[in-house]
Amino acid sequence: MVTQSAGPYTAAAVGMALAAYECRDKTEAEQRAYLKDAAYTISHARPTTANRMALITGGCLEAAETALASGENVSEAIMAYTVATNNRRYNKVYQMARHLVKMIPTHGAVMTQCFGETIVGQMCRVAKEEGKGDIRIFCPETRPYFQGARLTATVCRDMGMDVTVITDNMPAFTMKNEGVDVFTSAADAICMDGHVVNKVGTFQIAIAAKYNHIPYFVTGAPDKVHPTIDTVKIEMRDPDFSLQAMGVKTAADGVKGYYPAFDITPPELVSGVVTDRGIYVPYDLDRYYEGSDMGEFEMVI
Amino acid sequence: MVTQSAGPYTAAAVGMALAAYECRDKTEAEQRAYLKDAAYTISHARPTTANRMALITGGCLEAAETALASGENVSEAIMAYTVATNNRRYNKVYQMARHLVKMIPTHGAVMTQCFGETIVGQMCRVAKEEGKGDIRIFCPETRPYFQGARLTATVCRDMGMDVTVITDNMPAFTMKNEGVDVFTSAADAICMDGHVVNKVGTFQIAIAAKYNHIPYFVTGAPDKVHPTIDTVKIEMRDPDFSLQAMGVKTAADGVKGYYPAFDITPPELVSGVVTDRGIYVPYDLDRYYEGSDMGEFEMVI
Repeated sequence: MVTQSAGPYTAAAVGMALAAYECRDKTEAEQRAYLKDAAYTISHARPTTANRMALITGGCLEAAETALASGENVSEAIMAYTVATNNRRYNKVYQMARHLVKMIPTHGAVMTQCFGETIVGQMCRVAKEEGKGDIRIFCPETRPYFQGARLTATVCRDMGMDVTVITDNMPAFTMKNEGVDVFTSAADAICMDGHVVNKVGTFQIAIAAKYNHIPYFVTGAPDKVHPTIDTVKIEMRDPDFSLQAMGVKTAADGVKGYYPAFDITPPELVSGVVTDRGIYVPYDLDRYYEGSDMGEFEMVI
Repeated sequence: MVTQSAGPYTAAAVGMALAAYECRDKTEAEQRAYLKDAAYTISHARPTTANRMALITGGCLEAAETALASGENVSEAIMAYTVATNNRRYNKVYQMARHLVKMIPTHGAVMTQCFGETIVGQMCRVAKEEGKGDIRIFCPETRPYFQGARLTATVCRDMGMDVTVITDNMPAFTMKNEGVDVFTSAADAICMDGHVVNKVGTFQIAIAAKYNHIPYFVTGAPDKVHPTIDTVKIEMRDPDFSLQAMGVKTAADGVKGYYPAFDITPPELVSGVVTDRGIYVPYDLDRYYEGSDMGEFEMVI
């Protein structure tokens, strides 16, 4: 199963280390040129994340430069940089999970959406640390690709949690009848104006949560790349993919499909943006960066 | 594919005709006893619809009684009764469709939910008659059994409509981005207090419709069997059925499933109850029966 999430950022950095290994016997000037080419190729492999990827590959180039100047092994330097970056990120996600779990009552129930990557596992870990290990987790299956059923639920199960998969038409019923306390998701982007871009379905569940008086907490750092929602273009994927399930055709010939990969949840439906530095209202996200010299590169991706 | 809808009511009546044929060589008294037994067996085949089924088989018993009194062929009399009843029902659904289609603007877009049986085809037919043939229909697929993708979309296609299947996490996005004008569904029960019982997901789509300022019209007759929602018990089906799609397993071992077959939409989310006699506000459904000697048997099932 191929997913986006934060995995590609690690892959990009390790790709840079590999490039450095490939050109290790060349001259310094040639190595610089080779790595610059590699950085371009890697960061543009997926056009929609080129800007963010360039921050990763840019960091690798800096690490390479330092290594070249001091005569260190360039490939190893990039690998060390990658591990350090990941550890910093994991620690930030852990801090984020600590703030998120404060929002979950003991013996509570949480609804997720799609696959929140590292935050899902960290949420389970902190819930156990905090003695909330008996919370129930409800995962909508996340059609058409079933990330919720296949990834999120598996991570929760592996972390020893009580986890239930529901189909995507059941969140409102489940909220009303199973005592769901909190709806939470990660995001592909949290715009600085409080709009949340995430896997299609998030908007609908957030509406149902509001109607049922359940808070929606999105996890992640506000994204300076998107000052407002106007810079976001929703990716439309192959419509026929919605006419099958697990590879089996579901609809007759002549019926059309439709596949928006993401949707947009407005700030009025967002109860809080849970970051590594605490929880922010979606209308005042500049504050996340106040009193900090964090650049875009410091974001929790 | 096995569904409920109104099909079983016809099957029950035809079953009574078959029973009459089976006992045709017995004495009149024996035929009465045989048919009474058959009526009980058939009406109790599915406990949750026993009351309604008893109305159908009761009508068949009356037709049999008349035939026996006048020396007519009992089996043929029950068949004639069945055809007449169905024709009356089809005509009522046609009237209902006429009221529903008035709510759809020309060049408009309609969202459905699950399979509304006869009303779906009649809606398409009337839309064409009224020159609204270019309306677009969006059918959520209706997990876990895919009635929307497999039945509703096929009927719409067969009627020559422009029909698109979406997954169950896309209704809110589709409403917002594709100019959906009307959300409509049939119902397993429209309680006299305006609560609607229908396939799980209806509640959630109705919430999304309200949020997006789109009216929700439920089709069917108010159900005197349910004076309030308190007499309705939501059927919970095999939870593991939600852990597969088209027969393919979707979640890992150790993950729980969940399968409420229906949900409840409160009257505040219902813009109108579209009946054969016009459109009623969900708060005043007694009016449907006013000035009429319609009994429960006259309902559009």
